[in-house]
Amino acid sequence: MRSHFLQAARGEETARPPVWLMRQAGRYLPEYRELRADYTFREAISTPDVATEITLQPFERFGLDAVVIYSDILVALEPLGIDYHLESGVGPVIDDPIETSEAVPHHHEPVAERLDYVGELIERVSDHVGDRAATLGFAGGPFTLASYAVAGEPAKNHIPVRGFRAAHPTAFEDLLSTFADVVREYVQFQVDHGADAIQLFDTYAGLLGPEDYRDYVLPLHQEILEAVDVPTIVFVRNMGGRLPTLAESGADVVGLDWTVDMAEARETLGEQPVQGNLDPTDLLGDPEFVRRRTESVIEAAGPEGHILNLGHGVNRSTPVESVAAFVETAKSWEW
Amino acid sequence: MRSHFLQAARGEETARPPVWLMRQAGRYLPEYRELRADYTFREAISTPDVATEITLQPFERFGLDAVVIYSDILVALEPLGIDYHLESGVGPVIDDPIETSEAVPHHHEPVAERLDYVGELIERVSDHVGDRAATLGFAGGPFTLASYAVAGEPAKNHIPVRGFRAAHPTAFEDLLSTFADVVREYVQFQVDHGADAIQLFDTYAGLLGPEDYRDYVLPLHQEILEAVDVPTIVFVRNMGGRLPTLAESGADVVGLDWTVDMAEARETLGEQPVQGNLDPTDLLGDPEFVRRRTESVIEAAGPEGHILNLGHGVNRSTPVESVAAFVETAKSWEW
Repeated sequence: MRSHFLQAARGEETARPPVWLMRQAGRYLPEYRELRADYTFREAISTPDVATEITLQPFERFGLDAVVIYSDILVALEPLGIDYHLESGVGPVIDDPIETSEAVPHHHEPVAERLDYVGELIERVSDHVGDRAATLGFAGGPFTLASYAVAGEPAKNHIPVRGFRAAHPTAFEDLLSTFADVVREYVQFQVDHGADAIQLFDTYAGLLGPEDYRDYVLPLHQEILEAVDVPTIVFVRNMGGRLPTLAESGADVVGLDWTVDMAEARETLGEQPVQGNLDPTDLLGDPEFVRRRTESVIEAAGPEGHILNLGHGVNRSTPVESVAAFVETAKSWEW
Repeated sequence: MRSHFLQAARGEETARPPVWLMRQAGRYLPEYRELRADYTFREAISTPDVATEITLQPFERFGLDAVVIYSDILVALEPLGIDYHLESGVGPVIDDPIETSEAVPHHHEPVAERLDYVGELIERVSDHVGDRAATLGFAGGPFTLASYAVAGEPAKNHIPVRGFRAAHPTAFEDLLSTFADVVREYVQFQVDHGADAIQLFDTYAGLLGPEDYRDYVLPLHQEILEAVDVPTIVFVRNMGGRLPTLAESGADVVGLDWTVDMAEARETLGEQPVQGNLDPTDLLGDPEFVRRRTESVIEAAGPEGHILNLGHGVNRSTPVESVAAFVETAKSWEW
């Protein structure tokens, strides 16, 4: 239910934890694989008809409390005129990576023009689910976008962007700031079109050392999140030792990856609402294992301000029954 | 100096921090690239003549306080009869990955027979450097070895081994235990041949959630490290929120990756000696940047029980001058 999700995001007690999964619309679903056979990934995300159907697939199947739009963080490159495509077996590839200070873009086209299809998607999804689920928008964070833009393709440990930071600190700062401008406009655009909440995925920013994270990333997260009027969630991996820094982002909800101990996180963060944090590979075990592990997370999180989720996206090899067991454990829970 | 290194490892004050770099013998050195042109990687590590020369290259160039043997964590697969090779552009590939419970090996040949070349390498290196540097042996940890053995090749987020854990918990435990047996014998063998200290690299074990880490990995680290009579260092990435667990391994020195704040780690760990933790990509900046960042690490660590190192291995694209600036900053330091 939409109301469950919003209550938990405000830190209120809920009779059971609201539940959704990062990357819930995707390859592990047979109905997704079937539909996607007819479209490229870029076609699928940019055609509102198709994207709406895909977005709703996990909602129809499992009855989740939040429906996250089927899209990609890299769409934020479009208003900057940075071209990318998906290469099978490689991942996203940027045709013209940013390798010098001179290549850093400083202006972008209006998000509403370049990403109008996302606005339409959100409207359709929100119309369809109504009060049955929260409609959840999202955007990539500045560091994660920069990591793709600099490397040109997925790079182990994101060394290219980290090297760019060391070699060209000012250009690095400019690049993050450019992305932050786009993302700020983009999340506002999503809210304007009906998103009930926004998740900011700066998944890889935790690969920065603590000083760099505070200098470069934190102020931008604050800037982006402060401007949003609906509940916000921040998600960054590898922040287990820096949870208070995540909370300083100003997000309403702090996302926890699976390497964080939920009970300890609750102690560290006090009344801050949290989201997470089952190990996504726990879903590769049998349904009984999934139930047991899911119960541990719910128990450790307690009844107030907890949105149940995985600690990272669903893997494509996940059995559908495992996802069902995960969702059912939340839905049958009673505090 | 050997003495500097050993003093710091015991937690004593040193006039300046001893310094070495993870993966210090490698591709960023022109003399390495030249020598390696004549040998495959497997030939280079298993031919004591060649491996000795490569091991000593960074010592001759920079005058480091510890000389880590040029080898690979995967040599520990050899006593188990698990075959592997290095594939250009991919990394280590295991010809016959462990995908079922039945495939988990339970016995190994004597390390002294299968890895005699490592013993010879350590003797030669130790003879050559004498008291000028500590001769440092190392081994991969059980989880990291298992992650390669199960996936067959480098896998994003090490999902195959994490999935194996969920699907076959008992076989997973058996597999780790088999590797722990080999590693225990292997590090003792290295000490017998003259290693002054041992580093255990369970680099990827921090990808396990806290409960799994404590259940599966910690007892094995304790078992391996307790059996060793010389100073030991443990290195696991992504443990910033779990430093006390790392200390519980029983290692004399806790390795810190670059995402850990050195001053906070010192506060958390008390008198426990530490090693680390400059961001390896800081070395992609200019020498002045390298000096400034290195000084910050030294300052934050303080004069007692600190071995200066990077927070992960040197990248192959690192300029030699950066490594020189890093080492020189340590060697000219005066507390």
